[in-house]
Amino acid sequence: MIKIVVDMMGGDLGSAATVEGVLAFLKDHQDVEITAVGKLEELSLLKDKAKLIDARDILPMEAGVMDAIRAKGASMSIAIDQVLEQNADAIVSSGSTGAYLGATSIRLKKLPGVLRPALISPFPTRFLGKQVVILDIGASNENSPQELVQFALMGKLYSQSVLDVLEPKVYLLSNGSEPEKGSPESKEAFKLLEGHFPGFMGNVEARDALNGQADVIVTDGFTGNVFLKSTEGLAKMMSGMIKDAFKRNAFSKIGYLLSKKGFRTMSDALNYKNYGGAMFLGISKVAVKAHGSSDGHAFMHALRVAYRLAKAEIPTQIEKGIKQDA
Amino acid sequence: MIKIVVDMMGGDLGSAATVEGVLAFLKDHQDVEITAVGKLEELSLLKDKAKLIDARDILPMEAGVMDAIRAKGASMSIAIDQVLEQNADAIVSSGSTGAYLGATSIRLKKLPGVLRPALISPFPTRFLGKQVVILDIGASNENSPQELVQFALMGKLYSQSVLDVLEPKVYLLSNGSEPEKGSPESKEAFKLLEGHFPGFMGNVEARDALNGQADVIVTDGFTGNVFLKSTEGLAKMMSGMIKDAFKRNAFSKIGYLLSKKGFRTMSDALNYKNYGGAMFLGISKVAVKAHGSSDGHAFMHALRVAYRLAKAEIPTQIEKGIKQDA
Repeated sequence: MIKIVVDMMGGDLGSAATVEGVLAFLKDHQDVEITAVGKLEELSLLKDKAKLIDARDILPMEAGVMDAIRAKGASMSIAIDQVLEQNADAIVSSGSTGAYLGATSIRLKKLPGVLRPALISPFPTRFLGKQVVILDIGASNENSPQELVQFALMGKLYSQSVLDVLEPKVYLLSNGSEPEKGSPESKEAFKLLEGHFPGFMGNVEARDALNGQADVIVTDGFTGNVFLKSTEGLAKMMSGMIKDAFKRNAFSKIGYLLSKKGFRTMSDALNYKNYGGAMFLGISKVAVKAHGSSDGHAFMHALRVAYRLAKAEIPTQIEKGIKQDA
Repeated sequence: MIKIVVDMMGGDLGSAATVEGVLAFLKDHQDVEITAVGKLEELSLLKDKAKLIDARDILPMEAGVMDAIRAKGASMSIAIDQVLEQNADAIVSSGSTGAYLGATSIRLKKLPGVLRPALISPFPTRFLGKQVVILDIGASNENSPQELVQFALMGKLYSQSVLDVLEPKVYLLSNGSEPEKGSPESKEAFKLLEGHFPGFMGNVEARDALNGQADVIVTDGFTGNVFLKSTEGLAKMMSGMIKDAFKRNAFSKIGYLLSKKGFRTMSDALNYKNYGGAMFLGISKVAVKAHGSSDGHAFMHALRVAYRLAKAEIPTQIEKGIKQDA
């Protein structure tokens, strides 16, 4: 039985999205015990399906770590209490990233041997259905070469257990493909990985990150965040341009009607809602961060990812892997 | 009279592209003296229009700084000789970026007071016709806070004289818009700019970099390069997806025919060939780096940018600005 605690209140859409997500998730998962934390009066649809825990407060999206620690009545804080109390396997929230990262890593604790936890996220690639995971995308601001080496290991385990890639190809994000390219830290990490880490393939340029060659890309949190946000920004800009192109005149509007199926496939491939959000790796429990604006569909995907990570006992795997490495 | 020296041989398409570019450029620029350096037998169309200097060798695209210094017979090296000999205003090349950056900064010298030269490039924004310039996009790998402050100044002068922005809005690229966000160096630069630098608006996230709010975005060379390459990679991925969507079936192919004008506008807006390549700021002469695969049209734009930078006496402006700041 997998135990998942869910912060029902954190996201922009509140319990409307999370209740729908939990119900959809439960339809095809039997061996799960859900604890839903939130305003009880909004959770009645889950009455016979989950354990309900009341929480009256909601952390705002701009909340920081200290707010999360102080606000003991907030749904996120009570959800973390529940994980500890029940020794649950996983927690899922769509609340403030900063507060969630801080509070889970302080209260749920880093795994022994882990230097720094990392935020990992799947990205679409040029090949429909093929994803690449990138970490860290913003839990840290700077990372040492040793931390990057641990990220390679955590990313590899994620790719194997969630994306079913047998032998993930792992790269360092760099400004050139040659070994001597990269930030000072990533150059050092290159030396530590080369010849020692099965699956390490060298450097990949940001330009080729989404071309499908890599399964796992390792980078420091600042650079990873810039990568995440710049691809997000450009995707938004191009989507706007596509809309403009179709709205140009009566002909182009008909053009849209004739080609919209293909554009829906594209938009699905680019839609973060199909990817289940980001995961926080390196702490003692599975912690999934659904996108703040998750709807029911997106939240269901986040629950699925949490389930798979818990089922694969990712925290235990990471702890083992890091012990072997040391 | 503006004197521009042109390396005619460096790009992927060789003299075919550069000769066409020079001819197109000269059509609407009278007050220019072009020195064209390359294989004389390929430059005959320029005979009465430019000063021709023979060069027998071509640096390969993968050439590094030392190759450029050693290969004295290469068109890029001889072009740099010519700039020095004639005390020309500007140099344009589409050859190896590494070799060009190295050789121009060593031989044409940094301006007094400049800590590090920077590579700057315009990017399209959500608003057709509006561009934003970002620096450094890869001349350095790391930059100090003081260097970032100088980049702000150089970027502002560029925006004013090439893009005709009267009061450019200058931002630091960061992982959040709050002052306390950013890499350690950019946080320090924030403190140095805030309240001291007219036009400094704070931090911008990579997600908002191309939304049109910023005229100039300052970042270290490693991060800037990741930004450049990740937007390039995503644009390529999405363009491929757009093609797939239109190729889906007979209806979508007709859809393309009906809407292609709008998509051409979009593709023009995203096409680097309309932006004239990257510029190297902080050295004693104007140095423009056209894209390696520039065609005649792209190369003409690179020449236009060189002309405008030389006309605005950008090196002198930068030298003055940095003196005032010190």
